Amino acid sequence: MRDLLPKDFSKSMFVKDKVRESFRLYGYEEIATPIIESHDLLATRAGEEIRHRLYSFKDLGGRRIALRPEVTASVSRIVATKLRSEVKPLRLGYIANCFRYDNPQMGRYREFWQAGFELFGSTKLEADAEIIMANITLMKNLGFSNILIKLGDVRILRSVLEAEGMSEEGQNVVMGLVDKRRVKRVITFLKSKKTSNAGIKTINKLLSVKGTDIKKVFNRGKKILIHNDKALEALKDLETIINLTQVGGVDNDFLVDLGFARGLEYYTGMIYEIFVPDLGIALGGGGRYDKLVKLLGGEPIPAVGCAPGIDRIVLAMEKKQLFPEPLSKTDKILVIPVNDEISAKALEIAADLRRNGICAQNDIIKRGVRSALSYASKKDYTYTIIVGTRELVKECVILRDMKRNIQKEIALKDLIIEIRTR
Amino acid sequence: MRDLLPKDFSKSMFVKDKVRESFRLYGYEEIATPIIESHDLLATRAGEEIRHRLYSFKDLGGRRIALRPEVTASVSRIVATKLRSEVKPLRLGYIANCFRYDNPQMGRYREFWQAGFELFGSTKLEADAEIIMANITLMKNLGFSNILIKLGDVRILRSVLEAEGMSEEGQNVVMGLVDKRRVKRVITFLKSKKTSNAGIKTINKLLSVKGTDIKKVFNRGKKILIHNDKALEALKDLETIINLTQVGGVDNDFLVDLGFARGLEYYTGMIYEIFVPDLGIALGGGGRYDKLVKLLGGEPIPAVGCAPGIDRIVLAMEKKQLFPEPLSKTDKILVIPVNDEISAKALEIAADLRRNGICAQNDIIKRGVRSALSYASKKDYTYTIIVGTRELVKECVILRDMKRNIQKEIALKDLIIEIRTR
Repeated sequence: MRDLLPKDFSKSMFVKDKVRESFRLYGYEEIATPIIESHDLLATRAGEEIRHRLYSFKDLGGRRIALRPEVTASVSRIVATKLRSEVKPLRLGYIANCFRYDNPQMGRYREFWQAGFELFGSTKLEADAEIIMANITLMKNLGFSNILIKLGDVRILRSVLEAEGMSEEGQNVVMGLVDKRRVKRVITFLKSKKTSNAGIKTINKLLSVKGTDIKKVFNRGKKILIHNDKALEALKDLETIINLTQVGGVDNDFLVDLGFARGLEYYTGMIYEIFVPDLGIALGGGGRYDKLVKLLGGEPIPAVGCAPGIDRIVLAMEKKQLFPEPLSKTDKILVIPVNDEISAKALEIAADLRRNGICAQNDIIKRGVRSALSYASKKDYTYTIIVGTRELVKECVILRDMKRNIQKEIALKDLIIEIRTR
Repeated sequence: MRDLLPKDFSKSMFVKDKVRESFRLYGYEEIATPIIESHDLLATRAGEEIRHRLYSFKDLGGRRIALRPEVTASVSRIVATKLRSEVKPLRLGYIANCFRYDNPQMGRYREFWQAGFELFGSTKLEADAEIIMANITLMKNLGFSNILIKLGDVRILRSVLEAEGMSEEGQNVVMGLVDKRRVKRVITFLKSKKTSNAGIKTINKLLSVKGTDIKKVFNRGKKILIHNDKALEALKDLETIINLTQVGGVDNDFLVDLGFARGLEYYTGMIYEIFVPDLGIALGGGGRYDKLVKLLGGEPIPAVGCAPGIDRIVLAMEKKQLFPEPLSKTDKILVIPVNDEISAKALEIAADLRRNGICAQNDIIKRGVRSALSYASKKDYTYTIIVGTRELVKECVILRDMKRNIQKEIALKDLIIEIRTR
């Protein structure tokens, strides 16, 4: 758990604002779901790893509830119920804090912020491409120049396992182990489930076929999977998706990985993760999940989505020095009365500045002018306004430029114009 | 727990944006604290009522934790520790979701959003006035015209109880009962604690003295409390605070209530709640809490703060019809290719529009032009762009105005200018 102090908060907010800008550009309507959901909803298809990491407890009414470890299940619940009769396609976005009882490590916190783009109602590959493009656009708008998309499809491994007669539960175990790159344990498990030698060989090969020379990867894949039509279709879809995302002369780097799996069990097709060079962690990812809405009690509605990780993006932007400096540049003004009798007048002046959209604060400590000026200087105020008895008689105050250390008398009626035009 | 669907979410966001604007105007730096805190931190001085309503549980490490029921304790923890050496005064703001296991009722949810302004480091009444003014400014910027501030001071009742020799625990019980307006139970409790008849009489009187004729209230209060200097000082402070908030010719309505208590035990001075006419629930409130930072292990740092309730404000704005209609007016454009071959070209056009800051989406269902147009009409698109083979040869597309139901051919190179200048 972390506190976000003002500077870190501003960085997080900077990223969230860019996410909201991407929502607007791509037409995703933002929604919010509760942090607490029923344990069952969150555990469904979450994957063993995430189920173990749930913050789960009983509420005062005895219900088993949990803090959301991700938001796709909640959004799908809404699409299955409250938005059941909305016209499709339906584009929904969220920015939400999630919870996983992880061992803290770089860029991974127990409470973490995730954004999401979820696109419901299309089986077409244009939908998959849109989700990947939205994520790329976001990263580019944040200032990242080199982006690598690691791309795969759960149908590749799953259809080989299915051809071997493996149950869905068994497949989930394999996908979980593959996600954690436990290749030896994958093989042991396959053997325990009486997978054929040819099957084990195929899986083993697939786990090593990946690279940015995507033509080569696809060619090798087609050879390995020559007898598995479903897997071949997945390969062809990946090629199409890559072509669809290369619009307007933009070339994005893809790394195609035929042995790619992600932690969540609800994926049914394309999956991807997004990386920037020199930083070993994924800054977001997503995939297709065509069965989740039905599983949660709705009509069968195909879906594809992605979840950029806010905290990790902040971390990456810090490493790459992508945050503008300063993050915001509001002029701050401190209004200082020289004595207690004109304190009310100082309050009035500050209130008037604020009514005109200018950030103005009162000296509420009343330690005297010298100490107030020293505070203003430490706290990076742009100006101070010194309200003195002598000046007030002339309807004037003293405006002091704290950066340049110069001051001048100015008529109250000209104050706002003077500050605005500086 | 609630889902906020797009329309409700926009309303909530509208209020949050105005809160952030108030942060900026008054110079409050926004921070974020974790939703999960140690049970002890959140239970300290929270008040019996809130302690009973905590979402409290043990985490996987066996620690007793809880979901925050409010944020002031967390902010004070930060000021007591990480921000210990910051120059004071320190102005911090937050917008956060909080949790109370309440019985749901109008404007009250188990997960609810609260904003907060917290001002650390000043014992001066100008600080109390600033907090109340910040809250009033926010309400006015949201469009509320009639605002009533219910004002009191916990020192009034507490110092009478103290003079009767009542322990702090006993005082807390009384304040809790007063907060819930259980007058009879207050009297029974006072009798059980051997409070003098004069003391009971004084408390009983104070519980009935309130009104918007503040001069009258203060005069009656001064008579009742004539022998209690501490309570008299509190009365005088309230008068000063009211005067300080009446700056720049602005008259706010105050209702002074000498028998006012709030649910939280950490208050040490002025307390207030903010109301709008015809709506029986407080839309925010706050007060002074000079002992909390020290209690949480820090130096003794005086503090005063307030917490506007986002959900209740949304509700009140709906009742008063204060939301602008429409809440946002982004033009939405749907790009429709007439057949699959030029689907990539349609993707490219949409991507180009977005690069120019225009919200553009692709038809990702590919049901044909007629069905896409019907979708665009149902979903309130401003324009559609129909990408046809014949037009593309001439480097043109068809731009259709969905509101006026007219369309025209337009050169691709003029598309963005055309849309921007419409």
